[in-house]
Order: sequence, then structure tokens, then C-alpha cells
Amino acid sequence: MPRLKLTLEYDGKNFHGWQLQAKTNERTVQGVIQEAFAKLPGEHKNLRAAGRTDAGVHAVAMVTHVDTTTTIPNEKLTLALNAHLPEDVRVYTVENVADDFDAQFDCLYRRYVYKMKLARDHFRGTALERGRVLFLFQALDVPKMQEAARFFEGTHDFTSLATQETRETVRTVHQCELELKGRELNLHIAADGFLRNMVRAVVGTLLEVGEGKLQPEDITKILNAKDRSKAGQNAPPHGLYFVEAGYTAWVRRET
Amino acid sequence: MPRLKLTLEYDGKNFHGWQLQAKTNERTVQGVIQEAFAKLPGEHKNLRAAGRTDAGVHAVAMVTHVDTTTTIPNEKLTLALNAHLPEDVRVYTVENVADDFDAQFDCLYRRYVYKMKLARDHFRGTALERGRVLFLFQALDVPKMQEAARFFEGTHDFTSLATQETRETVRTVHQCELELKGRELNLHIAADGFLRNMVRAVVGTLLEVGEGKLQPEDITKILNAKDRSKAGQNAPPHGLYFVEAGYTAWVRRET
Repeated sequence: MPRLKLTLEYDGKNFHGWQLQAKTNERTVQGVIQEAFAKLPGEHKNLRAAGRTDAGVHAVAMVTHVDTTTTIPNEKLTLALNAHLPEDVRVYTVENVADDFDAQFDCLYRRYVYKMKLARDHFRGTALERGRVLFLFQALDVPKMQEAARFFEGTHDFTSLATQETRETVRTVHQCELELKGRELNLHIAADGFLRNMVRAVVGTLLEVGEGKLQPEDITKILNAKDRSKAGQNAPPHGLYFVEAGYTAWVRRET
Repeated sequence: MPRLKLTLEYDGKNFHGWQLQAKTNERTVQGVIQEAFAKLPGEHKNLRAAGRTDAGVHAVAMVTHVDTTTTIPNEKLTLALNAHLPEDVRVYTVENVADDFDAQFDCLYRRYVYKMKLARDHFRGTALERGRVLFLFQALDVPKMQEAARFFEGTHDFTSLATQETRETVRTVHQCELELKGRELNLHIAADGFLRNMVRAVVGTLLEVGEGKLQPEDITKILNAKDRSKAGQNAPPHGLYFVEAGYTAWVRRET
């Protein structure tokens, strides 16, 4: 059965994450994509994504694959799927791929951006951008946070930054860089893979550095402790965006 | 009673516009601001805005005035109001003004931006920016639309572009310019005042020009007809933003 690669955008707010929840029947991105396919003629199966985003996390370019007998040309299939999808998910490209292309297992790195805005004494954007950005009302030492971010780079056991993770806990973070542009504060993070809630725990830990509760060098101690209670709390999901699934070797990005 | 100037941002989606609807009890921006003031000690009255936006229209900087006996310092008052306001409205500045400052009658011009995006064969943004931008899926002749926009500039009777308007219908449009930046298409429009639904009717008419149903020179005929049925339909409210209330003489903006 021919395999197609689909690239998706979604607003995570009203989704219980990517992964189909067979038991609880909660609304998931995988679920609504499968429902849209089910309305088209033919057989469609094995829908899989590069990353399984958690509840509330957004995606600007999630890569997925699906096996399908559909004969609808790719551009028309994009339109047909979007006609059947709810407005908080859009398919924006459908491409032919080799039968053995695997969106999940062939993915060499995942890249996320966590969007924040310094909002102390400055409420602009807080109504219109709510649910898209984490607004920070506290005083923060941004240079210290930027210094701390780099301590997450490299190959480490990320147990201290993971929630209920049963997989292998060693990951390689290729880049962890906090960029300040005016009042916008964006964490750019790429790794071979991420543990559950890992980016949100990294952000929560960086906020503790910004607030003076931790020093940048404490990151190494936190990683070595392999104890979730040593790191900061998970930052809320609404600032987090899955931005890229990489199928060629990682190259460091300018931020 | 001292008068304060408040500058507000709001997401218009869940509001039935600015103006308090005494009869229908619908949710309005004026209503929720008055409710927030009512939770503070003192007397507060005469809340008025520079512009009465319609249902669904956003504001990034709506200027209002209010008379109040509150003794809370302005910065704390901003925080106190925001603590009592729903998250789709934020007050971002509170300033002292002369007792005779009038947000509505002293306002020399109002400026709006209508945000659109060319989305033909290009769905990026359509999930995450929905409700913030009008996505255009049709083929459009943008240079013709840009040419047509300028025909709205000047002093005209805008009856053909107004809905259920009982006021004087002559207005001076200082600038009506359609800016194309990549796929973003923004109408920048400033006038001494706007009639009801006027910007949305201007946008709907420009879209008919883009679709080839009207020519740029037809704008003059439409204005002269003083007949609403001659212009295009009202574009939806979710692309429209009130961006500036001007209290000094108009100066043309670079777009």
C-alpha cells in the first residue's frame, strides 16, 4: 500500500495531545486525522507522527506518515482532508514517500520552540496572544537563564526532567538556546528525542534560575541527581511548539 | 471627580462589541470594564471609548476615559483591574488626564488594520492564526486591490459602505492602503471617523476587485451611488483590529 508523508499544523489547546487514547476516548490529533481519512474512499492505516506531543502543545510542522489506497492526487487530498478536519488542525502538505519511510523512526532530531514574553509592567499582547505564549510577570535574570540553558546541551540522562517515562532516559540535546528579542524570550531546543514533558521541565528549571532560586551550574547537579524533584516544575503547555522533524543530520541553527 | 485615560487590548471574539447592551444583556467590553471597576472601592462613571467596535472586532490599543474617586495609584490600578477582568481584555496603561479630556470627542482620527493572508495552496498558519486573520483561498489580483484602496481616500459620503447608520455619513479617509508583505495582506485605514461596518465593507469591496468582479475605478461609482447594495459584502470581523486613537493631527504612515 503506498505511503504518504503529511505535514500538519495544530493548535493544541483542545487536544489531549497527539496520541489516540483508545481507553479514555479523549480528543486527540491522531484521532481526528484518522476520522478525516475514514470519510475518504479506500483503506488508510498506520498513521504515525515524528513526535507525540502532550495535551495543550502546539505544532507548526508535525511530520506524519500514513499508508493509503487513495488515488486522490496529493493537492486535492490536502483540500479533501482539510474539508473534513476541525479548524484547529490543518494538513498543509501531502507528499509521496518510499514505502519504508518512517516519520517516527527515521526522524534524526526533533526541534521545539517554547515562546515566552517578558510582561512585567507591560501587558501588551496579553489578551490577543493568550494561549500562544507564556507571559512572565516576575523579575528575571535573563543572562543567567541563557547561561543555564547551555548546560542542557550534550548527552545526558534526563531522568530529572521527565514525567512518568518508561523509555531509555539518555538523550542528546543538540542545541538549547534562549533567545531574547525585545520582550520575546524563545527557547530553541533540538534533540535526538525528548522524554515526556522534558521541554516544559527545562523551561520551568530555567525560570527558577531567572528567579535566583538556582544557579546555572546547578543544572549539572540536577542532571546528575536523576531525581525529578530536583528540577523546576513543568511550564504550561501553551507556550510550546513542535517546529521541525529532521530527516537529515542535525546542523546547529542561528537563533 | 478626577478623570483617567485607560488604554485597552481585547480579543473581540466573545464580545458583542464595545458598547453596553442594556436591553439584550449581551457580553460587551464596556460591560466587563464597568464590572471590574464596580469591584473596586469608590465611585466610577462615564466610561467612554474612542471607537465603538462591533461584535468580533479586536483592539490592540483602544483609548477610553473614566471618572473615578479611586485613590489607587495608576500602576496598581492597572493590576487591580486586570485581576478582576476576564483574560480576553487587558488594561495596559492608566494615565491621569485633564477633567475635560474626552476619549471619544477629542479623538481626531481612528486607525484600523484589517489582517489577511493569501492562503491559496498554502495552509501554513491557518490552524494557529485562525480567528486572528482572514485567510484568502481564492485567486486575487493584489495590485488591482491596492489601486482600488486609494479611491476610498478623501472626503466622501460613505453611505454605500455603512450598515444601519443614522449619523452623518460624510467622512474623511486619511489613508487607505493595502500592504503586501510576503503572503500577508494588511489594509491600513485611518479616518476622522468610521460608519458602522465601514472597514469591513471596504475590505469586502476590495476583495471583489481582487476577484475581477469590480474594477478600481468602480469605487468612485459605488461611493456616488449612496446605495449599500452596490458595494461588496462585509468581510468577517475577526481580521479587524482597532490600532490607534489619535489626539494630535493626522500624519500619513509609512506601511
